[in-house]
Amino acid sequence: MDDRVREHAAVLVDWSARIDAGDDVVVRVGEGAHDLGVAVAEALGERDANMLACYDSPELERAYLRAHGEEFPSDPAFELALYERADSVLSLRGTRNTSERADVPEGREQAYSRARQGIREARLSTDWVSTVHPTRAMAQQAGMSYAAYRDFVYDAVLRDWEGLAAEMRRLKTTLDGASEVRLRKDEDSTDLTMWVDDRTAVNSTASVADDSHNLPSGEVFTAPADTAGQVVFDVPMTVRGQRLEGVRLVFKDGVVVDWEAEAGGEVLRAILETDGGAKRLGELGVGMNRGIDRPTGQVLFDEKMAGTVHLALGRAYDACLPNGETGNDSAVHVDLITDMDREGTTLEVDGTVVQRDGTFRWEEGFPGA
Amino acid sequence: MDDRVREHAAVLVDWSARIDAGDDVVVRVGEGAHDLGVAVAEALGERDANMLACYDSPELERAYLRAHGEEFPSDPAFELALYERADSVLSLRGTRNTSERADVPEGREQAYSRARQGIREARLSTDWVSTVHPTRAMAQQAGMSYAAYRDFVYDAVLRDWEGLAAEMRRLKTTLDGASEVRLRKDEDSTDLTMWVDDRTAVNSTASVADDSHNLPSGEVFTAPADTAGQVVFDVPMTVRGQRLEGVRLVFKDGVVVDWEAEAGGEVLRAILETDGGAKRLGELGVGMNRGIDRPTGQVLFDEKMAGTVHLALGRAYDACLPNGETGNDSAVHVDLITDMDREGTTLEVDGTVVQRDGTFRWEEGFPGA
Repeated sequence: MDDRVREHAAVLVDWSARIDAGDDVVVRVGEGAHDLGVAVAEALGERDANMLACYDSPELERAYLRAHGEEFPSDPAFELALYERADSVLSLRGTRNTSERADVPEGREQAYSRARQGIREARLSTDWVSTVHPTRAMAQQAGMSYAAYRDFVYDAVLRDWEGLAAEMRRLKTTLDGASEVRLRKDEDSTDLTMWVDDRTAVNSTASVADDSHNLPSGEVFTAPADTAGQVVFDVPMTVRGQRLEGVRLVFKDGVVVDWEAEAGGEVLRAILETDGGAKRLGELGVGMNRGIDRPTGQVLFDEKMAGTVHLALGRAYDACLPNGETGNDSAVHVDLITDMDREGTTLEVDGTVVQRDGTFRWEEGFPGA
Repeated sequence: MDDRVREHAAVLVDWSARIDAGDDVVVRVGEGAHDLGVAVAEALGERDANMLACYDSPELERAYLRAHGEEFPSDPAFELALYERADSVLSLRGTRNTSERADVPEGREQAYSRARQGIREARLSTDWVSTVHPTRAMAQQAGMSYAAYRDFVYDAVLRDWEGLAAEMRRLKTTLDGASEVRLRKDEDSTDLTMWVDDRTAVNSTASVADDSHNLPSGEVFTAPADTAGQVVFDVPMTVRGQRLEGVRLVFKDGVVVDWEAEAGGEVLRAILETDGGAKRLGELGVGMNRGIDRPTGQVLFDEKMAGTVHLALGRAYDACLPNGETGNDSAVHVDLITDMDREGTTLEVDGTVVQRDGTFRWEEGFPGA
């Protein structure tokens, strides 16, 4: 076994999920995640935790869903009881075919998901963590060789998380006290101002201690209250199976008033027309994971990439809002990414340049310090 | 997928487990049983049952148990709750290495098992069924090619179970009213009489409807109250990892008074010396599965082989005993098999030959009818 699999398991169990002796832990082992499953089992044994292994198989689910009738009973008691009593749920994703569910009727999938809302809520109320074991299928989706993809995943996962968390607290402190955040790239493309008064930034440190549930992670995000100006997203995204490229949005009074896309315009139009909230920003996120050095079309990695900023159309996260305030509401939450790691690019907070050309002001090599 | 995998799933779900719409079904998918898992998922979907897939992995368990401390908490609540609420548990065994647990300290394994007695009881109080998906490792253990082993397993599993169950009821009726069961082979080897007054025969039809929980199955068994004479077991067995061959037992007043073995004598001695009940018979079973045509060293198959009788030293099953009566008690239950499919061999019940040379009296070709 690649040593990095064991290191991954240790980060997952200790840093991310904070497993203690006697914890009741459900491990959801993906079809292609057997090796990580073995390493996690060993780590849980070493920590004297209790383990139940579930099998997270798209092939089983596809066969089951295609054969099942249209109606699903709500929250079957046996599965609900399991998750209600679990302390942690560790999802080891690792598919062998990212298209395995392609021929499940969409309505079936949605009906199944709707019927299981209580189970989902029970799972999300545990110390859950979702992570990824690199598979050939995922390497293929990223357009990378298997060896290079494994390097990519482990570079993203095996970080100095404590050091990164400290750096993130620095940015969070800056954002929490701020009013105005401004993104600027060369004059023709991007000059966008977002107002974040009274909003709270969240540190995605890949640890349940910070209410951050994905490994890898590495971003600081908040929810803009208002937005004005223009922004170009130059990192391609795959949204609803379609490639989105060269998206330009123009905001006035918080709302998208003009837009264009070099590719994927129809998908973008559908998103913007979903509801009123889909034309407003729900999230401003700053990628801080230096282990992620290229976009792969997998948003959970791409949006964490150091030297990028992502903005999401649609729903805002409650954790960013003042008590009692409701943020932007929408049925969608679609992240779009812009590359900050280019000459002439700045992220300013209340007039101070916090990041220039992809380098934070507290980093060595900050230009024009 | 081999069509027989789908047929296997249908037999398991319909004949064996009697799954109905809305049943809460735990499917325990063995490491090497993925394909059967997919077929079972499809069958459960078709019947509108609810499914939770668990991962039954010797590699995960080995890693967990080796790393864990000596003490295990009793019946972790999350897993207990799952099995307490499940209607059925389908175990799809299919190991990729029958020796995977060889380096788990024995004490660890026992402590783990002891701590989980409540979970085990909860599982056994569902409509559980255990079956086998053929793997290369199991073919190897049976000394067979993978292709031949698959044929062997499916011949044993894909039976006319209703027809066989009717035939078994016939033998059960005969045994239930009987006093004396006598096994005879050529004079030098076997002439054994067992008394079964007031005992009840059980039909192992591979269906929860008959309280029979293994697929394949196919035997009728009862519990002798007394035994006298001599018997030779000419089908080799693997017991505690050792090969037992050519075992001869002599009974007087129900107790083994003399014994020998061509191979495995030390194991047999250890078994006989376990406790008082280990020298008495706990079971007389008649194999009736004509799909099983050779011994493979896997007792769950071997003892069901048509044309064989097996006798177990040790513990009797309660289902065979009159209400309130305790049968033979022992810490062991070791099955030994004798081949009835040879010339000059008879199974007599109260003086009537029920089987001669491996053929029942109701079968075509019964010799000397």
